[in-house]
Amino acid sequence: MSLSKNEIKLVKSLQIKKYRDLNRLFVVEGVKLVRELLEQTHFKIDGVFYTKDFKETIPNNIHSFEINESELERISGLKSPNAVLAVVKYPAEAPVDFAENNLVLVLDNVNDPGNLGTIIRTADWFGVQQIIASVATVDLFNPKVIQASMGAVYRVRFYRTNLTTAVQELKASGFEVVGAALGGENLYQNSFQKKTALVMGSESHGISPELVPYISKMILIPQFGETESLNVAMASGIILSHYKSEHNTSN
Amino acid sequence: MSLSKNEIKLVKSLQIKKYRDLNRLFVVEGVKLVRELLEQTHFKIDGVFYTKDFKETIPNNIHSFEINESELERISGLKSPNAVLAVVKYPAEAPVDFAENNLVLVLDNVNDPGNLGTIIRTADWFGVQQIIASVATVDLFNPKVIQASMGAVYRVRFYRTNLTTAVQELKASGFEVVGAALGGENLYQNSFQKKTALVMGSESHGISPELVPYISKMILIPQFGETESLNVAMASGIILSHYKSEHNTSN
Repeated sequence: MSLSKNEIKLVKSLQIKKYRDLNRLFVVEGVKLVRELLEQTHFKIDGVFYTKDFKETIPNNIHSFEINESELERISGLKSPNAVLAVVKYPAEAPVDFAENNLVLVLDNVNDPGNLGTIIRTADWFGVQQIIASVATVDLFNPKVIQASMGAVYRVRFYRTNLTTAVQELKASGFEVVGAALGGENLYQNSFQKKTALVMGSESHGISPELVPYISKMILIPQFGETESLNVAMASGIILSHYKSEHNTSN
Repeated sequence: MSLSKNEIKLVKSLQIKKYRDLNRLFVVEGVKLVRELLEQTHFKIDGVFYTKDFKETIPNNIHSFEINESELERISGLKSPNAVLAVVKYPAEAPVDFAENNLVLVLDNVNDPGNLGTIIRTADWFGVQQIIASVATVDLFNPKVIQASMGAVYRVRFYRTNLTTAVQELKASGFEVVGAALGGENLYQNSFQKKTALVMGSESHGISPELVPYISKMILIPQFGETESLNVAMASGIILSHYKSEHNTSN
Protein backbone atom coordinates (compact mmCIF):
# COMPACT_ATOMS: atom_id res chain seq x y z
CA MET A 1 0.00 0.00 0.00
CA SER A 2 0.98 3.58 -0.19
CA LEU A 3 0.00 6.22 2.32
CA SER A 4 -2.43 8.92 1.22
CA LYS A 5 -1.65 12.57 1.74
CA ASN A 6 -4.39 12.76 4.34
CA GLU A 7 -3.00 9.84 6.33
CA ILE A 8 0.47 11.38 6.35
CA LYS A 9 -1.00 14.69 7.42
CA LEU A 10 -3.02 13.12 10.25
CA VAL A 11 -0.15 11.07 11.70
CA LYS A 12 2.29 13.95 11.40
CA SER A 13 -0.22 16.29 13.11
CA LEU A 14 -0.14 14.09 16.23
CA GLN A 15 3.22 15.64 17.11
CA ILE A 16 1.13 18.63 18.21
CA LYS A 17 -1.08 18.52 21.32
CA LYS A 18 -4.00 20.34 19.69
CA TYR A 19 -4.34 17.63 17.05
CA ARG A 20 -3.78 14.82 19.54
CA ASP A 21 -6.65 16.13 21.66
CA LEU A 22 -8.85 16.68 18.59
CA ASN A 23 -8.35 13.11 17.37
CA ARG A 24 -7.81 11.56 20.81
CA LEU A 25 -4.82 9.77 19.29
CA PHE A 26 -1.08 9.76 19.99
CA VAL A 27 2.03 8.24 18.48
CA VAL A 28 4.45 5.57 19.74
CA GLU A 29 7.64 5.00 17.76
CA GLY A 30 10.47 2.53 17.56
CA VAL A 31 10.89 -1.24 17.80
CA LYS A 32 11.16 -1.57 21.56
CA LEU A 33 8.27 0.74 22.46
CA VAL A 34 5.92 -0.73 19.84
CA ARG A 35 6.83 -4.28 20.84
CA GLU A 36 5.87 -3.48 24.43
CA LEU A 37 2.77 -1.67 23.20
CA LEU A 38 1.63 -4.85 21.45
CA GLU A 39 2.10 -6.79 24.70
CA GLN A 40 0.10 -4.47 26.95
CA THR A 41 -3.65 -4.14 27.33
CA HIS A 42 -4.23 -0.66 28.76
CA PHE A 43 -3.98 1.26 25.48
CA LYS A 44 -5.94 0.41 22.34
CA ILE A 45 -4.00 0.61 19.09
CA ASP A 46 -5.54 2.46 16.15
CA GLY A 47 -2.96 1.34 13.59
CA VAL A 48 0.63 0.19 13.16
CA PHE A 49 2.79 1.45 10.27
CA TYR A 50 5.78 -0.84 9.90
CA THR A 51 8.69 -1.27 7.54
CA LYS A 52 10.30 -4.56 6.59
CA ASP A 53 12.80 -4.00 9.42
CA PHE A 54 10.07 -4.55 12.03
CA LYS A 55 10.20 -8.28 12.77
CA GLU A 56 7.55 -8.62 15.48
CA THR A 57 4.25 -10.35 14.78
CA ILE A 58 1.33 -7.95 14.78
CA PRO A 59 -1.95 -9.62 15.86
CA ASN A 60 -4.58 -9.91 13.12
CA ASN A 61 -7.10 -7.81 15.00
CA ILE A 62 -4.84 -4.75 14.80
CA HIS A 63 -4.86 -2.62 11.66
CA SER A 64 -1.36 -2.71 10.27
CA PHE A 65 0.19 -1.30 7.13
CA GLU A 66 3.56 -2.08 5.60
CA ILE A 67 5.22 1.10 4.40
CA ASN A 68 8.65 1.89 3.03
CA GLU A 69 11.37 3.85 4.77
CA SER A 70 10.74 7.11 2.98
CA GLU A 71 7.07 6.94 3.99
CA LEU A 72 8.11 6.30 7.60
CA GLU A 73 10.36 9.34 7.44
CA ARG A 74 7.41 11.43 6.30
CA ILE A 75 5.18 10.47 9.25
CA SER A 76 7.88 10.13 11.94
CA GLY A 77 8.69 12.72 14.58
CA LEU A 78 12.12 11.21 15.24
CA LYS A 79 15.38 12.38 13.70
CA SER A 80 16.23 8.72 13.02
CA PRO A 81 12.96 6.82 12.49
CA ASN A 82 13.17 3.30 13.83
CA ALA A 83 11.28 0.68 11.75
CA VAL A 84 7.77 1.26 13.10
CA LEU A 85 5.23 3.83 14.23
CA ALA A 86 1.94 3.09 16.01
CA VAL A 87 -1.07 5.34 16.37
CA VAL A 88 -2.74 4.77 19.74
CA LYS A 89 -6.10 5.81 21.21
CA TYR A 90 -6.31 7.93 24.35
CA PRO A 91 -7.30 5.65 27.24
CA ALA A 92 -10.53 6.23 29.12
CA GLU A 93 -9.76 8.20 32.28
CA ALA A 94 -10.40 5.86 35.16
CA PRO A 95 -11.18 7.37 38.56
CA VAL A 96 -8.17 7.16 40.87
CA ASP A 97 -8.22 4.49 43.50
CA PHE A 98 -5.67 5.22 46.20
CA ALA A 99 -6.70 2.35 48.43
CA GLU A 100 -4.32 -0.24 47.04
CA ASN A 101 -1.29 2.04 46.90
CA ASN A 102 1.17 3.01 49.60
CA LEU A 103 3.26 5.41 47.56
CA VAL A 104 1.70 7.97 45.22
CA LEU A 105 3.61 10.56 43.20
CA VAL A 106 2.03 14.01 42.73
CA LEU A 107 3.45 16.27 39.98
CA ASP A 108 2.77 19.98 40.26
CA ASN A 109 3.40 21.56 36.84
CA VAL A 110 6.39 19.58 35.62
CA ASN A 111 7.03 21.29 32.27
CA ASP A 112 9.70 19.40 30.44
CA PRO A 113 8.59 16.29 28.52
CA GLY A 114 11.96 14.57 28.98
CA ASN A 115 11.66 15.10 32.73
CA LEU A 116 8.12 13.73 32.84
CA GLY A 117 9.11 10.66 30.82
CA THR A 118 12.11 10.01 33.07
CA ILE A 119 9.94 10.46 36.17
CA ILE A 120 7.45 7.87 34.88
CA ARG A 121 10.27 5.44 34.02
CA THR A 122 11.81 5.85 37.46
CA ALA A 123 8.46 5.68 39.26
CA ASP A 124 7.78 2.38 37.52
CA TRP A 125 11.20 1.04 38.57
CA PHE A 126 10.26 1.75 42.17
CA GLY A 127 6.82 0.19 41.80
CA VAL A 128 4.81 3.42 41.94
CA GLN A 129 1.49 2.60 40.31
CA GLN A 130 -0.22 5.97 40.44
CA ILE A 131 0.92 9.43 39.37
CA ILE A 132 -1.40 12.39 39.88
CA ALA A 133 -0.51 15.48 37.87
CA SER A 134 -1.71 19.06 37.85
CA VAL A 135 -3.67 20.31 34.86
CA ALA A 136 -0.66 22.39 33.74
CA THR A 137 1.79 19.46 33.78
CA VAL A 138 3.18 18.71 30.32
CA ASP A 139 1.03 16.43 28.14
CA LEU A 140 1.49 12.71 28.85
CA PHE A 141 1.06 11.98 25.15
CA ASN A 142 3.83 14.32 24.03
CA PRO A 143 6.11 12.06 21.94
CA LYS A 144 9.13 13.01 24.04
CA VAL A 145 7.35 11.87 27.22
CA ILE A 146 6.49 8.54 25.61
CA GLN A 147 10.08 8.03 24.37
CA ALA A 148 11.74 8.99 27.66
CA SER A 149 9.38 6.77 29.67
CA MET A 150 10.84 3.70 27.92
CA GLY A 151 7.46 1.95 28.04
CA ALA A 152 6.64 2.78 31.65
CA VAL A 153 3.62 4.81 30.43
CA TYR A 154 1.98 1.47 29.71
CA ARG A 155 2.14 0.51 33.37
CA VAL A 156 2.00 3.56 35.62
CA ARG A 157 -1.49 5.07 35.90
CA PHE A 158 -1.50 8.81 35.19
CA TYR A 159 -4.35 11.02 36.30
CA ARG A 160 -4.59 14.74 35.60
CA THR A 161 -6.68 16.74 38.03
CA ASN A 162 -6.89 19.72 40.37
CA LEU A 163 -4.14 19.12 42.90
CA THR A 164 -5.53 21.01 45.87
CA THR A 165 -8.55 18.70 45.78
CA ALA A 166 -6.42 15.62 45.14
CA VAL A 167 -4.03 16.37 47.97
CA GLN A 168 -6.92 16.82 50.41
CA GLU A 169 -8.36 13.50 49.28
CA LEU A 170 -4.99 11.83 49.76
CA LYS A 171 -4.81 13.19 53.30
CA ALA A 172 -8.34 12.01 54.01
CA SER A 173 -7.32 8.56 52.75
CA GLY A 174 -4.52 8.39 55.32
CA PHE A 175 -1.54 9.53 53.26
CA GLU A 176 1.16 11.75 54.65
CA VAL A 177 1.64 14.42 51.99
CA VAL A 178 5.35 15.21 51.66
CA GLY A 179 6.73 17.95 49.41
CA ALA A 180 10.24 18.42 48.07
CA ALA A 181 11.45 21.97 48.60
CA LEU A 182 14.51 24.06 49.38
CA GLY A 183 14.35 24.80 53.08
CA GLY A 184 12.72 21.48 53.88
CA GLU A 185 13.88 18.95 56.47
CA ASN A 186 16.99 16.89 55.69
CA LEU A 187 15.88 13.84 53.69
CA TYR A 188 18.51 11.73 55.45
CA GLN A 189 17.02 12.47 58.88
CA ASN A 190 13.48 11.99 57.67
CA SER A 191 11.30 8.97 58.31
CA PHE A 192 8.59 8.26 55.75
CA GLN A 193 5.18 6.98 56.73
CA LYS A 194 4.25 3.88 54.78
CA LYS A 195 1.38 5.69 53.08
CA THR A 196 3.17 8.61 51.46
CA ALA A 197 2.15 11.01 48.70
CA LEU A 198 5.26 12.74 47.36
CA VAL A 199 4.67 16.15 45.77
CA MET A 200 7.28 17.43 43.26
CA GLY A 201 7.08 20.99 41.94
CA SER A 202 7.94 22.55 38.61
CA GLU A 203 11.48 22.98 37.26
CA SER A 204 11.53 26.74 37.71
CA HIS A 205 8.97 27.53 40.42
CA GLY A 206 8.85 24.56 42.77
CA ILE A 207 5.58 23.68 44.49
CA SER A 208 2.66 26.08 43.86
CA PRO A 209 1.93 28.41 46.80
CA GLU A 210 -1.75 27.39 46.88
CA LEU A 211 -0.71 23.79 47.46
CA VAL A 212 1.72 24.46 50.29
CA PRO A 213 -0.90 24.70 53.10
CA TYR A 214 -2.00 21.14 52.35
CA ILE A 215 1.48 19.65 52.61
CA SER A 216 2.33 18.04 55.95
CA LYS A 217 6.09 18.15 55.63
CA MET A 218 8.72 19.56 53.29
CA ILE A 219 11.93 17.63 52.72
CA LEU A 220 15.20 18.55 51.05
CA ILE A 221 17.96 16.48 49.50
CA PRO A 222 21.03 17.89 51.29
CA GLN A 223 23.37 19.90 49.12
CA PHE A 224 27.15 19.47 49.45
CA GLY A 225 28.41 21.38 46.41
CA GLU A 226 27.59 24.65 44.68
CA THR A 227 25.21 23.49 41.96
CA GLU A 228 22.00 25.45 42.51
CA SER A 229 19.51 22.68 42.02
CA LEU A 230 18.94 19.09 41.07
CA ASN A 231 16.89 18.20 38.03
CA VAL A 232 13.28 17.44 39.11
CA ALA A 233 13.40 13.92 37.67
CA MET A 234 16.65 13.26 39.51
CA ALA A 235 15.23 14.63 42.78
CA SER A 236 12.10 12.49 42.37
CA GLY A 237 14.15 9.34 41.82
CA ILE A 238 16.40 10.02 44.79
CA ILE A 239 13.50 10.61 47.17
CA LEU A 240 11.58 7.58 45.89
CA SER A 241 14.70 5.47 46.47
CA HIS A 242 15.05 6.67 50.07
CA TYR A 243 11.36 5.89 50.64
CA LYS A 244 11.86 2.39 49.25
CA SER A 245 14.95 1.81 51.37
CA GLU A 246 12.68 2.38 54.37
CA HIS A 247 9.51 0.66 53.13
CA ASN A 248 10.68 -2.25 51.06
CA THR A 249 7.18 -3.17 49.89
CA SER A 250 6.06 -4.05 46.41
CA ASN A 251 3.77 -1.05 45.90
CA MET B 1 31.91 45.21 14.63
CA SER B 2 30.76 42.58 12.28
CA LEU B 3 31.90 38.96 12.34
CA SER B 4 34.07 37.76 9.50
CA LYS B 5 33.17 34.61 7.59
CA ASN B 6 36.20 32.90 9.07
CA GLU B 7 35.21 33.75 12.63
CA ILE B 8 31.70 32.43 12.05
CA LYS B 9 33.14 29.29 10.53
CA LEU B 10 35.53 28.72 13.42
CA VAL B 11 32.96 29.19 16.19
CA LYS B 12 30.37 27.10 14.38
CA SER B 13 32.94 24.33 13.82
CA LEU B 14 33.34 23.96 17.60
CA GLN B 15 30.04 22.06 17.66
CA ILE B 16 32.11 19.17 16.28
CA LYS B 17 34.66 17.30 18.41
CA LYS B 18 37.29 17.11 15.66
CA TYR B 19 37.45 20.90 15.39
CA ARG B 20 37.31 21.39 19.16
CA ASP B 21 40.34 19.13 19.54
CA LEU B 22 42.14 20.82 16.63
CA ASN B 23 41.67 24.29 18.10
CA ARG B 24 41.62 23.20 21.77
CA LEU B 25 38.55 25.42 22.17
CA PHE B 26 34.93 24.80 23.12
CA VAL B 27 31.71 26.80 23.36
CA VAL B 28 29.59 27.88 26.34
CA GLU B 29 26.21 29.48 25.61
CA GLY B 30 23.49 31.35 27.42
CA VAL B 31 23.29 34.04 30.11
CA LYS B 32 23.47 31.79 33.17
CA LEU B 33 26.33 29.60 31.99
CA VAL B 34 28.43 32.50 30.69
CA ARG B 35 27.79 34.50 33.88
CA GLU B 36 29.15 31.59 35.94
CA LEU B 37 32.00 31.17 33.45
CA LEU B 38 33.06 34.76 34.10
CA GLU B 39 33.06 34.09 37.84
CA GLN B 40 35.20 30.95 37.76
CA THR B 41 38.94 30.61 37.39
CA HIS B 42 39.53 27.07 36.12
CA PHE B 43 38.82 27.76 32.43
CA LYS B 44 40.45 30.54 30.41
CA ILE B 45 38.13 32.43 28.07
CA ASP B 46 39.24 33.02 24.48
CA GLY B 47 36.41 35.42 23.61
CA VAL B 48 32.85 36.42 24.45
CA PHE B 49 30.31 37.26 21.74
CA TYR B 50 27.40 39.11 23.32
CA THR B 51 24.25 40.85 22.17
CA LYS B 52 22.71 43.91 23.83
CA ASP B 53 20.53 41.51 25.87
CA PHE B 54 23.57 40.34 27.85
CA LYS B 55 23.71 42.67 30.85
CA GLU B 56 26.67 41.27 32.78
CA THR B 57 29.93 43.18 32.99
CA ILE B 58 32.73 41.49 31.08
CA PRO B 59 36.18 42.17 32.59
CA ASN B 60 38.48 44.28 30.43
CA ASN B 61 41.12 41.58 30.16
CA ILE B 62 38.70 39.30 28.28
CA HIS B 63 38.26 39.75 24.53
CA SER B 64 34.62 40.59 23.95
CA PHE B 65 32.65 41.52 20.87
CA GLU B 66 29.15 42.94 20.65
CA ILE B 67 27.22 41.26 17.87
CA ASN B 68 23.61 41.41 16.73
CA GLU B 69 21.04 38.66 17.09
CA SER B 70 21.29 37.39 13.55
CA GLU B 71 25.05 37.02 13.97
CA LEU B 72 24.49 35.12 17.22
CA GLU B 73 22.10 32.82 15.39
CA ARG B 74 24.81 32.10 12.83
CA ILE B 75 27.40 31.01 15.39
CA SER B 76 25.07 29.38 17.95
CA GLY B 77 24.45 25.66 18.32
CA LEU B 78 21.19 26.23 20.23
CA LYS B 79 17.71 26.20 18.72
CA SER B 80 16.98 29.37 20.65
CA PRO B 81 20.23 31.31 21.12
CA ASN B 82 20.34 33.09 24.45
CA ALA B 83 22.10 36.49 24.36
CA VAL B 84 25.71 35.34 24.59
CA LEU B 85 28.26 32.77 23.43
CA ALA B 86 31.75 32.30 24.86
CA VAL B 87 34.69 30.49 23.31
CA VAL B 88 36.77 28.79 25.99
CA LYS B 89 40.20 27.20 26.01
CA TYR B 90 40.72 23.56 26.95
CA PRO B 91 42.12 23.44 30.48
CA ALA B 92 45.52 21.92 31.13
CA GLU B 93 45.05 18.33 32.30
CA ALA B 94 46.11 18.26 35.91
CA PRO B 95 47.21 14.94 37.37
CA VAL B 96 44.53 13.44 39.59
CA ASP B 97 45.03 13.74 43.30
CA PHE B 98 42.79 11.31 45.15
CA ALA B 99 44.19 12.08 48.55
CA GLU B 100 41.79 14.84 49.50
CA ASN B 101 38.65 13.09 48.27
CA ASN B 102 36.51 10.48 49.95
CA LEU B 103 34.07 9.89 47.10
CA VAL B 104 35.23 9.56 43.49
CA LEU B 105 32.97 8.83 40.52
CA VAL B 106 34.33 6.63 37.73
CA LEU B 107 32.49 6.64 34.38
CA ASP B 108 33.04 3.70 32.09
CA ASN B 109 31.93 4.69 28.56
CA VAL B 110 28.91 6.85 29.31
CA ASN B 111 27.79 7.73 25.77
CA ASP B 112 25.02 10.25 25.96
CA PRO B 113 26.03 13.90 26.42
CA GLY B 114 22.82 14.74 28.29
CA ASN B 115 23.54 11.90 30.70
CA LEU B 116 27.14 13.02 31.26
CA GLY B 117 26.05 16.61 31.87
CA THR B 118 23.37 15.50 34.34
CA ILE B 119 25.87 13.24 36.11
CA ILE B 120 28.31 16.14 36.53
CA ARG B 121 25.51 18.42 37.82
CA THR B 122 24.37 15.79 40.30
CA ALA B 123 27.92 14.89 41.36
CA ASP B 124 28.53 18.55 42.14
CA TRP B 125 25.32 18.72 44.20
CA PHE B 126 26.65 15.88 46.31
CA GLY B 127 30.08 17.46 46.63
CA VAL B 128 31.95 15.01 44.40
CA GLN B 129 35.09 16.85 43.31
CA GLN B 130 36.64 14.28 41.01
CA ILE B 131 35.22 12.32 38.08
CA ILE B 132 37.45 9.86 36.24
CA ALA B 133 36.20 8.80 32.83
CA SER B 134 37.24 6.15 30.34
CA VAL B 135 38.76 7.25 27.04
CA ALA B 136 35.55 6.27 25.21
CA THR B 137 33.26 8.35 27.45
CA VAL B 138 31.51 11.12 25.51
CA ASP B 139 33.49 14.36 25.13
CA LEU B 140 33.28 16.69 28.14
CA PHE B 141 33.30 19.69 25.79
CA ASN B 142 30.31 18.51 23.76
CA PRO B 143 27.90 21.49 23.96
CA LYS B 144 25.11 19.26 25.28
CA VAL B 145 27.32 18.13 28.18
CA ILE B 146 28.11 21.74 29.05
CA GLN B 147 24.43 22.77 28.88
CA ALA B 148 23.13 19.82 30.92
CA SER B 149 25.81 20.30 33.59
CA MET B 150 24.30 23.69 34.46
CA GLY B 151 27.72 25.08 35.28
CA ALA B 152 28.94 22.14 37.34
CA VAL B 153 31.69 21.54 34.72
CA TYR B 154 33.36 24.60 36.18
CA ARG B 155 33.70 22.93 39.57
CA VAL B 156 33.97 19.16 39.23
CA ARG B 157 37.39 17.99 38.02
CA PHE B 158 37.15 15.63 35.06
CA TYR B 159 40.01 13.36 34.11
CA ARG B 160 40.00 11.01 31.13
CA THR B 161 42.29 8.00 31.39
CA ASN B 162 42.65 4.25 31.16
CA LEU B 163 40.24 2.92 33.78
CA THR B 164 41.90 -0.40 34.58
CA THR B 165 44.98 1.54 35.67
CA ALA B 166 42.93 4.21 37.46
CA VAL B 167 40.86 1.67 39.37
CA GLN B 168 43.99 -0.13 40.55
CA GLU B 169 45.45 3.19 41.71
CA LEU B 170 42.24 3.98 43.56
CA LYS B 171 42.43 0.62 45.34
CA ALA B 172 46.06 1.22 46.21
CA SER B 173 45.04 4.59 47.65
CA GLY B 174 42.60 2.93 50.02
CA PHE B 175 39.35 3.28 48.11
CA GLU B 176 36.73 0.57 48.02
CA VAL B 177 35.82 0.26 44.33
CA VAL B 178 32.06 -0.28 44.02
CA GLY B 179 30.31 -0.95 40.71
CA ALA B 180 26.63 -0.57 39.83
CA ALA B 181 25.34 -3.66 38.06
CA LEU B 182 22.31 -5.87 37.65
CA GLY B 183 22.87 -8.85 39.88
CA GLY B 184 24.73 -6.79 42.47
CA GLU B 185 24.00 -6.64 46.21
CA ASN B 186 20.93 -4.71 47.34
CA LEU B 187 21.93 -1.05 47.71
CA TYR B 188 19.62 -0.74 50.71
CA GLN B 189 21.48 -3.46 52.60
CA ASN B 190 24.87 -2.14 51.59
CA SER B 191 27.22 -0.20 53.79
CA PHE B 192 29.65 2.14 52.02
CA GLN B 193 33.19 2.63 53.17
CA LYS B 194 34.04 6.28 53.63
CA LYS B 195 36.61 6.14 50.84
CA THR B 196 34.50 4.93 47.91
CA ALA B 197 35.07 4.97 44.16
CA LEU B 198 31.74 4.39 42.40
CA VAL B 199 31.98 2.90 38.91
CA MET B 200 29.04 3.45 36.53
CA GLY B 201 28.92 1.64 33.18
CA SER B 202 27.58 2.60 29.79
CA GLU B 203 23.90 3.00 28.95
CA SER B 204 23.72 -0.15 26.85
CA HIS B 205 26.55 -2.39 28.02
CA GLY B 206 27.10 -1.67 31.70
CA ILE B 207 30.58 -2.00 33.16
CA SER B 208 33.30 -3.26 30.77
CA PRO B 209 34.26 -6.93 31.35
CA GLU B 210 37.96 -6.03 31.64
CA LEU B 211 37.18 -3.74 34.56
CA VAL B 212 35.08 -6.23 36.53
CA PRO B 213 38.01 -8.11 38.14
CA TYR B 214 39.17 -4.89 39.78
CA ILE B 215 35.82 -4.09 41.37
CA SER B 216 35.45 -5.08 45.02
CA LYS B 217 31.67 -5.15 45.15
CA MET B 218 28.72 -4.79 42.80
CA ILE B 219 25.56 -3.11 44.04
CA LEU B 220 22.07 -2.85 42.58
CA ILE B 221 19.25 -0.39 43.11
CA PRO B 222 16.36 -2.77 43.89
CA GLN B 223 13.67 -2.98 41.24
CA PHE B 224 10.00 -3.03 42.23
CA GLY B 225 8.28 -2.54 38.86
CA GLU B 226 8.74 -3.86 35.34
CA THR B 227 10.82 -1.10 33.77
CA GLU B 228 13.98 -2.78 32.52
CA SER B 229 16.51 -0.25 33.66
CA LEU B 230 17.15 3.11 35.22
CA ASN B 231 18.85 5.86 33.27
CA VAL B 232 22.60 5.89 34.13
CA ALA B 233 22.46 9.48 35.36
CA MET B 234 19.50 8.63 37.58
CA ALA B 235 21.23 5.53 38.95
CA SER B 236 24.38 7.55 39.67
CA GLY B 237 22.42 10.20 41.55
CA ILE B 238 20.52 7.64 43.61
CA ILE B 239 23.66 5.76 44.65
CA LEU B 240 25.54 8.99 45.45
CA SER B 241 22.61 10.05 47.63
CA HIS B 242 22.64 6.78 49.58
CA TYR B 243 26.39 7.16 50.08
CA LYS B 244 25.89 10.71 51.39
CA SER B 245 23.10 9.60 53.72
CA GLU B 246 25.68 7.29 55.31
CA HIS B 247 28.75 9.56 55.14
CA ASN B 248 27.47 13.05 55.63
CA THR B 249 30.84 14.67 54.94
CA SER B 250 31.57 17.66 52.79
CA ASN B 251 33.63 15.83 50.15
